[in-house]
Amino acid sequence: MRLARPLENLIDELMKLPTIGPKTAQRLALYILRAPASDARQLAHAITEAKEKIAPCSNCGYLTDIDPCFLCLDNKRNSSVLCIAEEAADIIAIEKTGFNGRYFVINKDFNIMNDSDLEDLNLDKFKEKLASGIVQEVVLALNPDIEGEILGRYLAGIAGEYNIKVTRLAHGLPVGGDIEFADEITLRRAIEGRHEF
Amino acid sequence: MRLARPLENLIDELMKLPTIGPKTAQRLALYILRAPASDARQLAHAITEAKEKIAPCSNCGYLTDIDPCFLCLDNKRNSSVLCIAEEAADIIAIEKTGFNGRYFVINKDFNIMNDSDLEDLNLDKFKEKLASGIVQEVVLALNPDIEGEILGRYLAGIAGEYNIKVTRLAHGLPVGGDIEFADEITLRRAIEGRHEF
Repeated sequence: MRLARPLENLIDELMKLPTIGPKTAQRLALYILRAPASDARQLAHAITEAKEKIAPCSNCGYLTDIDPCFLCLDNKRNSSVLCIAEEAADIIAIEKTGFNGRYFVINKDFNIMNDSDLEDLNLDKFKEKLASGIVQEVVLALNPDIEGEILGRYLAGIAGEYNIKVTRLAHGLPVGGDIEFADEITLRRAIEGRHEF
Repeated sequence: MRLARPLENLIDELMKLPTIGPKTAQRLALYILRAPASDARQLAHAITEAKEKIAPCSNCGYLTDIDPCFLCLDNKRNSSVLCIAEEAADIIAIEKTGFNGRYFVINKDFNIMNDSDLEDLNLDKFKEKLASGIVQEVVLALNPDIEGEILGRYLAGIAGEYNIKVTRLAHGLPVGGDIEFADEITLRRAIEGRHEF
């Protein structure tokens, strides 16, 4: 079936997004074409604007449109507990549990097959925080998979150099799962049950 | 949890799309933020361009970037059979079965609760085709629900004024379902088994 080229192009672009297959992409594209022109403009604008205005916080790596981000600016938080996570989506999920420490986001896909990935991680800010003398506990909030395990050992090694206690989220998270999709109660229990690494 | 305003805005816009809930919208938004800037630009551009360049064909109502559309321009098609459908997505599905007649797309949501909807349908081109003397059969390819039933009776009434045979797709489509999501074999059988309305 031949489709109008701009329609085919839109379907192709939508299919690049996670969880969007060909059928869903076609459905979304046709919906966009039927919707008012202002809706399409707003969606296109929201994509461009978010991409332009949002960047990782220079202090913690969380995605923000102000720098430092509101999490870093919040002086009611407990700076002695530093939670380290792989991506901003994990922070969003952890914040919902009421956790009130500080964060550090790695913001980089770590591939177990690639040895140099660990060395390529930008951990300068993380080490700076450890060296400050304020942090008394590092909480590893890494996904419960092989990559998270290796990453955890690597980060625990660094924290060990500063003699800082390292904990990890309690088991209870389904192995192979993704922190960002855990329900709040499971994730809260995992935070409460964190133990020495 | 407070999110950066442009991120929240992007999530809100994505949630306006069908089948996209809050979790998926957040996942898509964060994916867009992590992807290369060129990907986001291309997606935004594809949305704007599709919306600007694509419009219903002035002859049959199918979505097209040239007017008349390639379906109307194709002179190998059988003009004596006119298939009428509710939206372009249905034509895309029907084309995959190898149907080779002509089309007419209604392009308007018909709501059974609103009496004036039937009169508001723009059927001038449809009546013009019926009056041309070329069409010998009108195939109603309407969704198998109450709206489709009422719409079908209304359209059959109009075709009857021109003494043109009216057929409908054979049952086999799940009641309450959507033509655009039927698999090709089911839909092909439904076309082969069409019968007098």
